[in-house]
Amino acid sequence: MSVGDTTTVRQRAHRSVLTAALGDLRALLGERMSTGDSVLAQYGRDESWHRPQLPDAVVFPETTKDVSDICAICYRHEVPIIPYGVGSSVEGALIPVSGGVVVSLGRMNQVLSVDPGNFDCTVQPGLQRRALNEYLRDTGLTFTVDPGADASIGGMVATRASGTNAVRYGTMADVVRAMEVVLVDGTVIRTGTRAAKSAAGYDLGHLFIGSEGTLGIVTEITVRLFPIPETVVAMTCCFETLKQAVDASVEVMQASLPVARIELLDDLMIDAVNSYSKTAMPVVPHLFFELHGDPESVRRNAEAVEEMVKAAGGFSIEWSENREEQNRLWRARHDCAYACMAYRRPRKMLTTDVCVPIPALTDCILSASEDAKANDIVAPVLGHVGDGNFHMVLLIDPDDVDEIRRAEGVSRRLVERAIAAGGTCTGEHGVGLGKRDYLVLEHGSAAVETMRAIKRALDPKGLMNPGKILPESQIDTA
Amino acid sequence: MSVGDTTTVRQRAHRSVLTAALGDLRALLGERMSTGDSVLAQYGRDESWHRPQLPDAVVFPETTKDVSDICAICYRHEVPIIPYGVGSSVEGALIPVSGGVVVSLGRMNQVLSVDPGNFDCTVQPGLQRRALNEYLRDTGLTFTVDPGADASIGGMVATRASGTNAVRYGTMADVVRAMEVVLVDGTVIRTGTRAAKSAAGYDLGHLFIGSEGTLGIVTEITVRLFPIPETVVAMTCCFETLKQAVDASVEVMQASLPVARIELLDDLMIDAVNSYSKTAMPVVPHLFFELHGDPESVRRNAEAVEEMVKAAGGFSIEWSENREEQNRLWRARHDCAYACMAYRRPRKMLTTDVCVPIPALTDCILSASEDAKANDIVAPVLGHVGDGNFHMVLLIDPDDVDEIRRAEGVSRRLVERAIAAGGTCTGEHGVGLGKRDYLVLEHGSAAVETMRAIKRALDPKGLMNPGKILPESQIDTA
Repeated sequence: MSVGDTTTVRQRAHRSVLTAALGDLRALLGERMSTGDSVLAQYGRDESWHRPQLPDAVVFPETTKDVSDICAICYRHEVPIIPYGVGSSVEGALIPVSGGVVVSLGRMNQVLSVDPGNFDCTVQPGLQRRALNEYLRDTGLTFTVDPGADASIGGMVATRASGTNAVRYGTMADVVRAMEVVLVDGTVIRTGTRAAKSAAGYDLGHLFIGSEGTLGIVTEITVRLFPIPETVVAMTCCFETLKQAVDASVEVMQASLPVARIELLDDLMIDAVNSYSKTAMPVVPHLFFELHGDPESVRRNAEAVEEMVKAAGGFSIEWSENREEQNRLWRARHDCAYACMAYRRPRKMLTTDVCVPIPALTDCILSASEDAKANDIVAPVLGHVGDGNFHMVLLIDPDDVDEIRRAEGVSRRLVERAIAAGGTCTGEHGVGLGKRDYLVLEHGSAAVETMRAIKRALDPKGLMNPGKILPESQIDTA
Repeated sequence: MSVGDTTTVRQRAHRSVLTAALGDLRALLGERMSTGDSVLAQYGRDESWHRPQLPDAVVFPETTKDVSDICAICYRHEVPIIPYGVGSSVEGALIPVSGGVVVSLGRMNQVLSVDPGNFDCTVQPGLQRRALNEYLRDTGLTFTVDPGADASIGGMVATRASGTNAVRYGTMADVVRAMEVVLVDGTVIRTGTRAAKSAAGYDLGHLFIGSEGTLGIVTEITVRLFPIPETVVAMTCCFETLKQAVDASVEVMQASLPVARIELLDDLMIDAVNSYSKTAMPVVPHLFFELHGDPESVRRNAEAVEEMVKAAGGFSIEWSENREEQNRLWRARHDCAYACMAYRRPRKMLTTDVCVPIPALTDCILSASEDAKANDIVAPVLGHVGDGNFHMVLLIDPDDVDEIRRAEGVSRRLVERAIAAGGTCTGEHGVGLGKRDYLVLEHGSAAVETMRAIKRALDPKGLMNPGKILPESQIDTA
């Protein structure tokens, strides 16, 4: 029997398994399963540069029981399961590299309860963060995690998302209190409680947060909320050089000034935003600040920030206490990803996402930016610098093999420098497909083996979102 | 062969295995291993009411390599390993219920590095928290987690400790950034990085935090530090009834006033503290507040707190901005455990530790206190009420079987009410021996099975601190 024959036999076996699984799913879900070409194409891609791939089917559960039944069927037939929120991953975390069944959680998008007295609410995973905040508006509370994209809460759990104001309010790892999770065989478990803290056994919650759908499907999430601040002051500041801007942000952080957001945009990013969002900001590096609190403290702290950034070379400092004006400003900031993809000519993003100790931030940003220039890659920089986290968005043509190779080199060297400085290859986007090769470099092979042991314990057949997070074969670079 | 014979054969096999293991440990450690009676007795007990049991040996490693070699030897001979900090557990987490080798980390008590620019430091697990803060004094930074006892940092990792000011600065789950951990077979892994956040793979750090030495031994810990606040205002306030005091704390929390600590002491606890610490506080329920920040904000917020607690029935309100006076006050608070054990006549503590959603706090405390009275148990109450966490300290004579039975009843009903209200059986003390029976009630059997799967994956021979956290046999009460 030749190799070709073997493959054909395997493919046939795979196809018959799949046919049986899809039959069972059809019986369960009826019209809430699709195998239509356009649907498969829609659920086979995300916002990253990674090549889309087609799943074998997309299912649309409406209840936890649906999700549990879907998993039980896939488990029985050994078919891959890929949970899907709104597809805003920038690391290929959603791409069905081994085919299988995409579980779209878009119909599970309800707010289940709000408890203002305990500052929390419980939602379904398909709910998007803007819709949640719209829902909460009259309660005086807000869901603070803001990764830019209007992501689903379930997707934000999956990638351990954070974003612009994590420096004050924390990341998804900090705000999730409790969850309901469906395991690969359909078993439903609960993690955490609605209490502010607990020491009751292994912390399963944090294990699922950031696991990118490789350990289970989150079907309910209780998140901590914060009061909408009485006063918000936004401040923008220009700098002549990137170094001045980053140094200023480091000084503000090291002075422990209570800022809610510090965002860095370099000159390229400002140029991209100006083009996309029809703004007219000076094309120089900027810092955007936001301070939250009572009027007196906020103004006093804003003055302290202003004094510090001026001394660091900042100019054209503008304050705003007007919420609408601030929203316009942040909307431009939130459109950065789309602004990048449209910058000069349509391209895809190879996004870097390192996060480093604050003292290493300036060197890390400057060397990355210089490396991109030296390799002729257009690469705007955007940073949640209060956390030591920044993104250099390497703009590439997915069909230009040499450009991809150069961009990957820039990205790899940036990650290597970040890890050497005590940082991480990904602050908030997750590993997906794009950062798998750095996992051993960051954690060491023994820690990655420990992760693999946990994966085997919870997903022995390797069906949950296969090909993500853990590197295929392990090479000890530690 | 009778059952008795089998036991004897087993015991003999056990003894020969043990002799071989101790021989290997002696060869490795020389005088840094002890099998002397007084040492075994010292390391076989903790601060709880659980009966002490003797380990077979106590070892005193000085390096990570020592710990790794010790684990490798114990793993080879299948001998239990019990990590030990300073023995301040109040849940029996340290008691060597299956014998084995206690690994005392007391000699690994160094500060390895401090990075003020990144607000963190790296320490060995045997370092105690007061010594760390003494070391940090000149840096202007402080390690904030304060469980009362002068615990070791490693022990605080093990129990996911928190304490009085977690409401502002977080628990060990929030402040630990990175760790070095020795697994059961001696493998050394690292978790986390020195960056403020990361989305790089499974969150091994949070898995070890709170695992009570059942998954590995932590040998290095990087913790986040905070600036010592410019101004600290302490405030004490008396109430006529327990209900008024708890309601006042709930109101302050729900108004989002930025307090750093809110501690509740009921009349019995005040009486115990007065006796033990030679203070003369009125024997009524008290709230102790602390506010941290710049002088203006702190005073303004302290006035808001005062106004609110007055309206809630508070009286005899006293402020202090004097650090020495505050320290004396908090020292009395920190001596609560010892004050309880000496109250009226020497007794042991059966300590409860529930943590509930804030709206459920008043009912939970009042019903617990009434239940203790109805069962004739002396049970002072102490609460980190800002987090919804409180301790009712049931004072018992360990030789009085009926008193223990009544106290366990009070404790069990309290836990059942807390879990029904969406809370947890333990906010900060951990599960140890004392809370194992509640794990299924709190998490459901499927979640406990998931914990068990993780335990098996990381400790397949079940050698790491056996008998802790996971219940022996599983009963589905979900």
